[in-house]
Amino acid sequence: MRLSHAFIPTLKETPAEAQITSHRLMLRAGLVRQTSAGIYAWLPLGLRVLRNIERIVREEQDNAGAQEILMPTIQPAELWKESGRYEDYGKEMLRIRDRHERDMLYGPTNEEMVTDLFRQSVKSYRELPQILYHIQWKFRDEVRPRFGVMRGREFLMKDAYSFDLDHAGAVMSYRKMMLAYMRTFQRMGLKAIPMEADTGPIGGDLSHEFIILAPTGESQVYYDAAFEEIDYLSGGAGGFSHDKPEDLERFFKQMTSHYAATDEKHDAARWDSVAADRRREGRGIEVGHIFYFGTKYTKPMNAAIAGPDGKLVHPEMGSYGIGVSRLVGAVIEASHDDNGIIWPDSVAPFKAAILNLKPGDAACDGLCERLYAAFGGNALYDDRSDRAGAKFADADLMGHPWQIVVGPRGAAAGTVELKRRATGERVEVTPEEALARIG
Amino acid sequence: MRLSHAFIPTLKETPAEAQITSHRLMLRAGLVRQTSAGIYAWLPLGLRVLRNIERIVREEQDNAGAQEILMPTIQPAELWKESGRYEDYGKEMLRIRDRHERDMLYGPTNEEMVTDLFRQSVKSYRELPQILYHIQWKFRDEVRPRFGVMRGREFLMKDAYSFDLDHAGAVMSYRKMMLAYMRTFQRMGLKAIPMEADTGPIGGDLSHEFIILAPTGESQVYYDAAFEEIDYLSGGAGGFSHDKPEDLERFFKQMTSHYAATDEKHDAARWDSVAADRRREGRGIEVGHIFYFGTKYTKPMNAAIAGPDGKLVHPEMGSYGIGVSRLVGAVIEASHDDNGIIWPDSVAPFKAAILNLKPGDAACDGLCERLYAAFGGNALYDDRSDRAGAKFADADLMGHPWQIVVGPRGAAAGTVELKRRATGERVEVTPEEALARIG
Repeated sequence: MRLSHAFIPTLKETPAEAQITSHRLMLRAGLVRQTSAGIYAWLPLGLRVLRNIERIVREEQDNAGAQEILMPTIQPAELWKESGRYEDYGKEMLRIRDRHERDMLYGPTNEEMVTDLFRQSVKSYRELPQILYHIQWKFRDEVRPRFGVMRGREFLMKDAYSFDLDHAGAVMSYRKMMLAYMRTFQRMGLKAIPMEADTGPIGGDLSHEFIILAPTGESQVYYDAAFEEIDYLSGGAGGFSHDKPEDLERFFKQMTSHYAATDEKHDAARWDSVAADRRREGRGIEVGHIFYFGTKYTKPMNAAIAGPDGKLVHPEMGSYGIGVSRLVGAVIEASHDDNGIIWPDSVAPFKAAILNLKPGDAACDGLCERLYAAFGGNALYDDRSDRAGAKFADADLMGHPWQIVVGPRGAAAGTVELKRRATGERVEVTPEEALARIG
Repeated sequence: MRLSHAFIPTLKETPAEAQITSHRLMLRAGLVRQTSAGIYAWLPLGLRVLRNIERIVREEQDNAGAQEILMPTIQPAELWKESGRYEDYGKEMLRIRDRHERDMLYGPTNEEMVTDLFRQSVKSYRELPQILYHIQWKFRDEVRPRFGVMRGREFLMKDAYSFDLDHAGAVMSYRKMMLAYMRTFQRMGLKAIPMEADTGPIGGDLSHEFIILAPTGESQVYYDAAFEEIDYLSGGAGGFSHDKPEDLERFFKQMTSHYAATDEKHDAARWDSVAADRRREGRGIEVGHIFYFGTKYTKPMNAAIAGPDGKLVHPEMGSYGIGVSRLVGAVIEASHDDNGIIWPDSVAPFKAAILNLKPGDAACDGLCERLYAAFGGNALYDDRSDRAGAKFADADLMGHPWQIVVGPRGAAAGTVELKRRATGERVEVTPEEALARIG
C-alpha cells in the first residue's frame, strides 16, 4: 500500500476523549474511527490487524477440531424465552421489533441459537463430540462504553460451543479449548494466564478467564512464574497435543495448580505459600472466557440425542469466547512505547514500512519500488513528499516490525538502513540483506 | 473434514417451504438453516462457499485499487437525517432505539457513513481518487422474505464507494468498478451481463445492474452474443487493464454498445436491429448494482476538499454493490442438475470428496487416509458406514467438483474411480493420477 493514497488518517494531536493507551494509539495511527458511542469503523490499517488476529484464532480453533459456522447477528426473542434468559439479560441486550412487530434482538452471545441448530440436526451419540464456533459481530448495549475497542458496544467475538455425551467428554472439550486458547495467545506474542472465574449470565459450574499481561492493563494480577515459562506451541517432549487425553490432563493440571489471581480474588495466604522467587505481579487484561455448564441449555430447550443404550440424553455443553476486536487493543496495551505501537510480527498490518526519504530522486524511487514489489503487497510504502522526521515518527507510531529507510546517499551506494521497531536497533545493509533478514 | 463428524445435516426430503432450486438445494445439502424469517445460519459447507466468493470479490476489489475497511452494522440515525434519507427509506430500514433512547438503525447500505469517514479525514484533491469498500452484513426488513439467501433480510454485501475530484474522474472510477465486476463474475464461472438500470433509493444519473445467466433465474433476459464471448480476465491483446484509461474506455463502450435488457425494459424495435444469429435469450439473476450520483451525498453532508486552485470542492461519488450471500444461491441457480449442486472449481467448498465404499477394510481405509492427507484439509472424506448409494447421492447433492471413489477391489489393485461432477465422466486411475488431475 502506498501511503500517499492510503486511507490512513493519522493524527498529530492526542484525542481528548481517549483515556487509555490503546485507544489513543488506535485513533492516532488511523486504525479506527468512532461512528457512534462505543461503535467503530475499522480503517485499512486496523482491519489488517483485526484480520490477522481473527486468522490466528480461526487456525487454532480448527487445529483443536472445532468446526466453523456463521450464525446471524439478529436473533428471534423466542429462543431466549425458551432458555429463560430473555428477561434476565437486562438492558445490555439490544432489543428490536421488526416491521411485523416480532421481537428480535442483536445477539450478545449464541448459546440458545447453537443449541437450536444442534437439536435440529444431531440425533445420535455417534456424532459426538461436536465443537461449533463462529466469529461474528455481537452487540452489548453498555451503559457507558469507553476505552475504544476494549469495551465497545459492537464487537467481534469468537464463540465456540461444545456438545458431549457426558461429563467426562465435556471436561475433555473444555481442556482442549483451554489449550487452544493458550496457543492462540502465544502466537500473538502475548503472555496469557488462565484464572478461575465466576460464571455470570452464561451460568455453569466451571469457568476460567484468560488474562494477558500488559503494563497498562486494567487489573492487578498475581501469578506463579510457571505461566511465563510454559511453551504451549512446542510439539516436542513436554509439549501438549489436543488429541491425547493424557496431554490434556497434564496440561490442565499445570494450568490449575499454579497460583494466579486478580486483585478481586487475591488470597494473601495462598500467595505467601508460593516460593518468593516464583512470585510475579503485573497488570492484565481479560481477553477470553470459557464455561462448562452441562445441560443448562439442552434441558430447557429439549436438545436430546440417542445414547449408546438407545435412551434420549441431554448433551453436556460448554462455551468458549475470545474477544477478537478487543485483542487489537489488548495487543497494543501489551506492546507499545512512548513513540507508538510495537506490533508483534504475527499480527502486524504489514511486515515492513519502506521510507523513501527523497521521493523524486531517481535512485531512491527506483530502489523503493524494487523493495516494495518484493513484498507483494505486504509492505507500506511511505512515498509521501513529507520531511524525513514526519516519516520516522509515523512509522514508529504505526508500529511496523521493520522499517527500511532509503535515502539518497545510501541509494547511490546500494545500501539501506534497516530498523527493528521492537529494539530500536539499526543496521546499514544491502537491500537484499534487508529482505533476507525480514524473511 | 471427515463427514462422520462434520456438521453437515443433509436432508432426504425436499423442504416444503423452499420454492426455488437454490433454496431447496442449500437446505438439502446442509449449507444453511433458517433461524428467523429471511435470516440464515451458515453451516460449515455453506460457509466455505461464502468465504470463497468473498475472497474472489475482495481480490478483484484490491486489484482495482479499492481499499478495504469495515464499517459497523449499527448506524446512528443522525447521519441519515443529514442526507435526508432517514424518512425516505421506509419500513425496509430496521430502526432501533438503544438504552439511552438514541435512534439507531441496522445499515441497509453505507453512503452516509462512508461520506462521514471521508469528510473527517480527506482534505486535499491530492489524496484522490479514493475507492473504499467493505464486506459486511446488512439488513433490509423485506415485507415477505423468501427464496432463501437470494432475498434474505440479513445478507452479506460488498459495497464500495468512490470519491473523485470531478465528473471525468468519477466516470473513470465507475468504469474501473464495472471491469472489476465482470472479472469477479467470470472467476466464479458465471456469465454476467451489465444492463442500464434505474437508480432507486441510492439516487444518481447513471446506473447498471449485473445479471448473471441461470436457467432457473428470476427474469427473462435478451442480450447480444458478445457478452458470452468477451474474456475479461485476459491480460493479452484485446484485454483490459484497470490502470489504462484507454482500456477502460474501450471496455465501457463494449459493455454499453451491445443490446442487453430484461423483460421489463425490453425494446422490440432495438432487438430486431440485432443480427439474428447474435440474439440470445435466457433467464437471469441480479447479483450487483453500481451507481454514479455525483454530489448527492457530499453536498448535503458538506464533505469538501481543497481543489487544485485552493477552493473547496464537493467530491463526486459512486457506489458499487455485490450481493455476496446472494451469489451463493445465484451460482447454484446457474450450475446444478437433478442430482444436486455442481460447484465451479473456484467457489467449491472442497476440491474433492473421497468416498470410502468400505470403511473398516484396511486397504480402503489406508488409501483414503493417504488421499485425504494429500489434500491438506481441502477434501471432504466420506468415512461414514453408510451404503455406497447414499454416498454417491450425497456427493452429487453437495456438488464437489471431483469425487474419488475408493472400493475394496480397486484399493487392492491400486486404483480409484475419479468422477468429474460437471460432466459425469468417470475414469479408473491410480491415486497419484487422480491427485494430479485434480491439481
